[in-house]
Amino acid sequence: MVFKKITLVGRSTESFDHAVDDAVDRAEETLDNVQWVEVAEMGVEVGSVEGREYQAEVEVAFELE
Amino acid sequence: MVFKKITLVGRSTESFDHAVDDAVDRAEETLDNVQWVEVAEMGVEVGSVEGREYQAEVEVAFELE
Amino acid sequence: MVFKKITLVGRSTESFDHAVDDAVDRAEETLDNVQWVEVAEMGVEVGSVEGREYQAEVEVAFELE
Amino acid sequence: MVFKKITLVGRSTESFDHAVDDAVDRAEETLDNVQWVEVAEMGVEVGSVEGREYQAEVEVAFELE
Amino acid sequence: MVFKKITLVGRSTESFDHAVDDAVDRAEETLDNVQWVEVAEMGVEVGSVEGREYQAEVEVAFELE
Amino acid sequence: MVFKKITLVGRSTESFDHAVDDAVDRAEETLDNVQWVEVAEMGVEVGSVEGREYQAEVEVAFELE
Amino acid sequence: MVFKKITLVGRSTESFDHAVDDAVDRAEETLDNVQWVEVAEMGVEVGSVEGREYQAEVEVAFELE
Amino acid sequence: MVFKKITLVGRSTESFDHAVDDAVDRAEETLDNVQWVEVAEMGVEVGSVEGREYQAEVEVAFELE
Amino acid sequence: MVFKKITLVGRSTESFDHAVDDAVDRAEETLDNVQWVEVAEMGVEVGSVEGREYQAEVEVAFELE
Amino acid sequence: MVFKKITLVGRSTESFDHAVDDAVDRAEETLDNVQWVEVAEMGVEVGSVEGREYQAEVEVAFELE
Amino acid sequence: MVFKKITLVGRSTESFDHAVDDAVDRAEETLDNVQWVEVAEMGVEVGSVEGREYQAEVEVAFELE
Amino acid sequence: MVFKKITLVGRSTESFDHAVDDAVDRAEETLDNVQWVEVAEMGVEVGSVEGREYQAEVEVAFELE
Repeated sequence: MVFKKITLVGRSTESFDHAVDDAVDRAEETLDNVQWVEVAEMGVEVGSVEGREYQAEVEVAFELE
Repeated sequence: MVFKKITLVGRSTESFDHAVDDAVDRAEETLDNVQWVEVAEMGVEVGSVEGREYQAEVEVAFELE
Repeated sequence: MVFKKITLVGRSTESFDHAVDDAVDRAEETLDNVQWVEVAEMGVEVGSVEGREYQAEVEVAFELE
Repeated sequence: MVFKKITLVGRSTESFDHAVDDAVDRAEETLDNVQWVEVAEMGVEVGSVEGREYQAEVEVAFELE
Repeated sequence: MVFKKITLVGRSTESFDHAVDDAVDRAEETLDNVQWVEVAEMGVEVGSVEGREYQAEVEVAFELE
Repeated sequence: MVFKKITLVGRSTESFDHAVDDAVDRAEETLDNVQWVEVAEMGVEVGSVEGREYQAEVEVAFELE
Repeated sequence: MVFKKITLVGRSTESFDHAVDDAVDRAEETLDNVQWVEVAEMGVEVGSVEGREYQAEVEVAFELE
Repeated sequence: MVFKKITLVGRSTESFDHAVDDAVDRAEETLDNVQWVEVAEMGVEVGSVEGREYQAEVEVAFELE
Repeated sequence: MVFKKITLVGRSTESFDHAVDDAVDRAEETLDNVQWVEVAEMGVEVGSVEGREYQAEVEVAFELE
Repeated sequence: MVFKKITLVGRSTESFDHAVDDAVDRAEETLDNVQWVEVAEMGVEVGSVEGREYQAEVEVAFELE
Repeated sequence: MVFKKITLVGRSTESFDHAVDDAVDRAEETLDNVQWVEVAEMGVEVGSVEGREYQAEVEVAFELE
Repeated sequence: MVFKKITLVGRSTESFDHAVDDAVDRAEETLDNVQWVEVAEMGVEVGSVEGREYQAEVEVAFELE
C-alpha cells in the first residue's frame, strides 16, 4: 500500500488558510484516500489580478490502491 | 543567560494561526520566559482524523535561569 | 524591464495573514508596480511585546522602470 | 525522450531497504521504463500501527514515450 | 482553479536552453494551460551517451480544469 | 494535545536500521506516546571505535500529556 | 569598503544567458562598482506572455562608496 | 548508548567565540557527557541591547546514561 | 512599523568578528533603527589581496519609518 | 593536523548498508586515517543495470599527515 | 567499482554552456571514466576581469579503477 | 584555467578564526594558487579531546595549471 504525493497550488482572495483548503478540496474531489498535506510555499500574486490572490503550494499524499 | 529552543507541533481543527497559538500556549504553561517562536513547517492531517487538523511545527525559544 | 526584489518583515497582533498584508501594504505605498510576494519565514515575538506579535518575512518583487 | 519523475512513499514492517523496494516495485508494475530512484526522506511510523512501519519517500524517474 | 505541478527532465545534445525547451515542449503537447516553469537542477550525462547530453530537471505548473 | 520533538542519535555496529531502532527503543523506554520518527542524518564513525559504528540522527515526535 | 547585494530578475525571450545579462546590464546602468553576480533561480514564464520568457533571478554585489 | 542533542543560544557582548563558549559552558554545568557541538546560526542583536550582543545558536550532543 | 532587511558583505584583514562589525558599522552610519543582524555566509578572499581578507555576508534588519 | 573530506559513491546489488560499506572499504584501501563518514544521498539505479543497484554518496573524512 | 566526485569551476567569456563545457573538458583531459556532471552554482565575475566571465561550479563523477 | 575546490577541516584549541586559518595554511603549503575559501560548517569537539577543539570545515578554491 504505497502512498503517492502530488503537488498542487491552491488560490484564494481571502487568506492562506483558504488557499490551502482550496488545494485539499480539489485533491479530495478526485482522490479517495487523501492522508496528509504538507505546505511547501506561500505567496501572494498581485500584478496580474485585482486585489491580492493568496497562493499555497502543497504536497498532497494519498494511498494508492 | 542562555536561551534554549524546543520543538513543538501545535494542532487545531480551525486554522494554522490557532495551531501556532496552541503550541505557544502549551509552552507558556510550563516555561516562564518564552522569548520568540519560529514556524518551521505547516501541514494538514486528513487520514486519521475527522475533517482536517491543521498542524504547525514551531521552535520555541525561552531564557534559561 | 527588470524586476527587483526587496525583503520586508510585516507585523500584526492578530494573525499571520495580517502580518503579510502589513508588509504588502507598506510596499505598495512606495512602489508602483508590485508583482508578487513570496513568504520566506513566519514567527511570533513574545518576550519584548505585550501579548504576541505575528511576524512574516516576505520578498516583494516589483518592476523597475 | 523526456523523463518524468513521480513521488512515492514505500512502506515495510522490516527495514528501510524493503520500504524503498516496495516503492520501486509499485512503480515498475505500472510504468515501463523506470530509470533511477532518489531517496528523499526516511521515517518510522509508530503511533498508528502495531510495532513499527519503516517508510521511504522516493522520487522515481521514468522515460516518457 | 487550482494549479498542479509535475516534474520533467528535458534532454539535449546541444545546450541547457534546449534541454529546458525540450521539457516545456513535451508539457505543452499534452497539457492545455501551462503557466510557468521552474528549473530545479541541471546536469550533463557523459558515460552512457556519445558526446554529452545536457539535462534540465524542471517543475511545470499548469491550471487544472 | 501538542506534540513535542526531540533529537537522538542511535548507534549500532551492524547497520543503519539497527541504529534507527536503537534510538526509537531508547525513546520508548522513557516516553509513553511516541508517534513518528524522522531520519535526519546518517553517518559512520571509524576513527574512535573498533571497526565501524553506524549512526542515525532522528527526530522523535511524541504526544505531550 | 563594504559590499552590498541586491536581487534582480532579468528577462529575455531568447535564452537564460540573455536573461542574466539583462539583469547585469540594468545593474551596471545605475551602479558604479558591480563586482560579481550569483544566479539564484531560473524559470520560464509561459501563461502571461506570448511564447516563452526566460527569467533569471540574480544577486548583484557592488562596492559601497 | 544513545546521544541526545539540544539547541541553545549563547550570548556575548564581545565575540562569536565567546557566544559559543557561553552555550557550551551552560551545557557542561548541567550535563555530564557533552560530546560535540555544531554551530547552527550566528547573529547580532542590536535594537534591544546597549551596544551589540553576539549570539550563536548551537546544537549540543551529549551521551544519555 | 515594518522591518526591512538588506544584505551587506563586511571585510576585515583581521578576523570574522571584525568583518561582521564592519558591515554593522556601515549599516548604522546610514540607517537609524538597526534591530538585528543575521550572518549568512563567511569566507576568505586570498587570490586578489595581500594576505587574507575575512568576509562576512550579513542581513541587516532595520525599522522603516 | 587538518582533516580532508572526499566524496565517493558506493554501489551494491544488495542493500544501502553494503553500498555505504563499499565506499568506506575503498577509502580505507588507499587512505590511512579515515575518521568518519557522512551519508549525503541514496538512490537506486534501474535503467542501465540488471535488477537494481543501490548507491550511496558519502563524504569520507580522513586526517592529513 | 566506486565513483568519486570532484568539484571544478569552469569559466568562459561567452556563456554558461561554455563554462560548464570548460570544466568537463578539463576533467576529461585527466580522468578516463567521467560518468556524469551536476551543476551546483552559476555566477558572473565582473569586477576583476574585462567584460564578464561566466562561471559554473560543477561536480564531476568518474569511476575509480 | 579551471578552478578546483577541495574540502578541509581546520582545527584549533583557541578560536574559530584560528581553525579557518589552520585549514588555509595547510592548503597554501601544497597548492600554489589558492583563490578563495568558503566556510561551510563550524563545530566544537569536546568528548575526545582535553578542553575544546574548535573546528571549521572550509572549501578551498585554487586555480588548476
